[in-house]
Amino acid sequence: MAINVIQSVKLEDNLNTLVLLDQTVLPGKTEFLDLTTQEEIWEAIFELKVRGAPAIGIAAAYGVYLAAKSSAAENVDEFYQDFKKAKDYLATSRPTAVNLFWALDRMERRLKEETERNKDVEALKNALLEEAHAIRDEDEEVCKTIGEHALTLLKPEMGILTHCNAGTIATAKYGTALAPIYLGTEQDYNFKVYADETRPLLQGARLTAWELEQAGVDVTLICDNMASIVMKEGKVQAVLVGCDRVAQNGDTANKIGTSGVAILAKHYNIPFYVCAPLSTIDLNCKNGDDIEIENRGAEEVTAKWYSERMAPEEVNVYNPAFDVTDHSLITAIITEKGIAYPDYQDSLKKLFD
Amino acid sequence: MAINVIQSVKLEDNLNTLVLLDQTVLPGKTEFLDLTTQEEIWEAIFELKVRGAPAIGIAAAYGVYLAAKSSAAENVDEFYQDFKKAKDYLATSRPTAVNLFWALDRMERRLKEETERNKDVEALKNALLEEAHAIRDEDEEVCKTIGEHALTLLKPEMGILTHCNAGTIATAKYGTALAPIYLGTEQDYNFKVYADETRPLLQGARLTAWELEQAGVDVTLICDNMASIVMKEGKVQAVLVGCDRVAQNGDTANKIGTSGVAILAKHYNIPFYVCAPLSTIDLNCKNGDDIEIENRGAEEVTAKWYSERMAPEEVNVYNPAFDVTDHSLITAIITEKGIAYPDYQDSLKKLFD
Repeated sequence: MAINVIQSVKLEDNLNTLVLLDQTVLPGKTEFLDLTTQEEIWEAIFELKVRGAPAIGIAAAYGVYLAAKSSAAENVDEFYQDFKKAKDYLATSRPTAVNLFWALDRMERRLKEETERNKDVEALKNALLEEAHAIRDEDEEVCKTIGEHALTLLKPEMGILTHCNAGTIATAKYGTALAPIYLGTEQDYNFKVYADETRPLLQGARLTAWELEQAGVDVTLICDNMASIVMKEGKVQAVLVGCDRVAQNGDTANKIGTSGVAILAKHYNIPFYVCAPLSTIDLNCKNGDDIEIENRGAEEVTAKWYSERMAPEEVNVYNPAFDVTDHSLITAIITEKGIAYPDYQDSLKKLFD
Repeated sequence: MAINVIQSVKLEDNLNTLVLLDQTVLPGKTEFLDLTTQEEIWEAIFELKVRGAPAIGIAAAYGVYLAAKSSAAENVDEFYQDFKKAKDYLATSRPTAVNLFWALDRMERRLKEETERNKDVEALKNALLEEAHAIRDEDEEVCKTIGEHALTLLKPEMGILTHCNAGTIATAKYGTALAPIYLGTEQDYNFKVYADETRPLLQGARLTAWELEQAGVDVTLICDNMASIVMKEGKVQAVLVGCDRVAQNGDTANKIGTSGVAILAKHYNIPFYVCAPLSTIDLNCKNGDDIEIENRGAEEVTAKWYSERMAPEEVNVYNPAFDVTDHSLITAIITEKGIAYPDYQDSLKKLFD
């Protein structure tokens, strides 16, 4: 059946407007922002209205295109100056987002290549549009291909547990871990999805449950500590998660709690799948010990979201944002180039050949 | 060192006032209520200001004593009528709390026994006071003895993880799973305690972190999904939990999430201990399959506590309040009669001989 897979970043209105899903007001409100100026786009990125590495990159690419498009420059040098100014400006919107710089650098590279064979400003503008579209379309293609590979491991009517949000709204379309769920739903697989709420920031409750519901997927929200009981009760036949970084031996960093879900899955004999674009696989990283874990503030655990304090004022809090899932717990790592099985040391390397 | 182990239910003011810790305003406020009439005590139980099975039983025992004490009856029959009226009234304050009936029935039994050998109303009032004190003191003794047994399994400087609240404020004093932590702290064991916040109702964040902090215990609050990383990082050498019901084979029902913690502990080779008063061991219950799990409302997961909705309006929620930890995951079950090790089918039975 045709389903509504949300696209959180789109160029619309005769290619003059960046339409962005405001992820900060989910799930209470579904609001798409119409952004036309670089200032508006800078602010949207800065205020985390767009989140998810691929989605941020796409927003920045379209953003720098829209800025360049509005340039009144009549020659290549002036145009390049305008582009560069917009690029440097947008790059300050979120200084820790690697995909932001990656996308902006790619746009600049394309512009430089283009200027070598073309001195027409309009043609340069078109080249930038093409490149921004390419960044978006390639991401959708990567997600879709991961989804197709993952779907070969799943069967209709399966119960699937997922953690955090590796969904369509973080990417061009489909997401990574949620891609096979959307593709399967289009083919009437009738999955029953269990979404861990994912404390402390509740991405599962706020985002995963919301976007799957929008597409008509049968999704049930659980607290993180309910993963064991739903597995024990036979409600789950596969676990699908995304990832932030995969080491050469398959050790996988992902949202805090992922390693616990993997251990439960192993205990209950349920396959545990990591969906990973090649861009997240870091062959220079030997193993999980080399991945630094970000520790975040106590207030995310004790006070954020709450109408009243839910923990004592001065309590110690440990709040690691990610953990590393040992490769021995991972049944397969699914990429756009195919599915890697253990031994990952070999199989991941082969994906890059 | 001497430490401040909170007592949540006490008879004070020349035995005229029930002093009750208001658990509904924790951890924001520490408020002790002074209750003298049966109506006030009924309301406090009804509004969950006192929680924890033993603490409710103690509050009811003192409550029915205070009501009987205020009786102006001049003969045994009248006095018994007054007692019975107060008992029946207090029994309606929380119709699902087994300990409430148990304590009130025990008070009535004592009164009946006493009337057979004594026709003096003042003496009967004293007997009721004695019985209420006994209910309280026996509970403290059970908790303390569990704590002493459990402490033999622990070493100074250990990291200890606990889930939910099996603490002093749920009992007369010390609690069950937290009893060895208090007793060890009195002997300068310097434990490092990790308290799972315990979604959805956050008993770990609101109650365990609070009461341990009051006693000067080194406690760190974590989200439930961080149990895996703290274990992996070597921060935890033992897990201590309470329980709601233990079956004859050792299968243990406790707050939702307990079974997941037990599986993680097994994976990381960390001992997992259940602290269980004999009153929670049900030899008539064959195994965990015979224990019914209460499912509770979605709003506890999606809206309660929050200043704004954290999940979509109509999302499905699965909210089991408890889960069952398989006996194979439990290193030992610690009771006031000693420590039971596998095979529990034998060892639990022997405790009752």
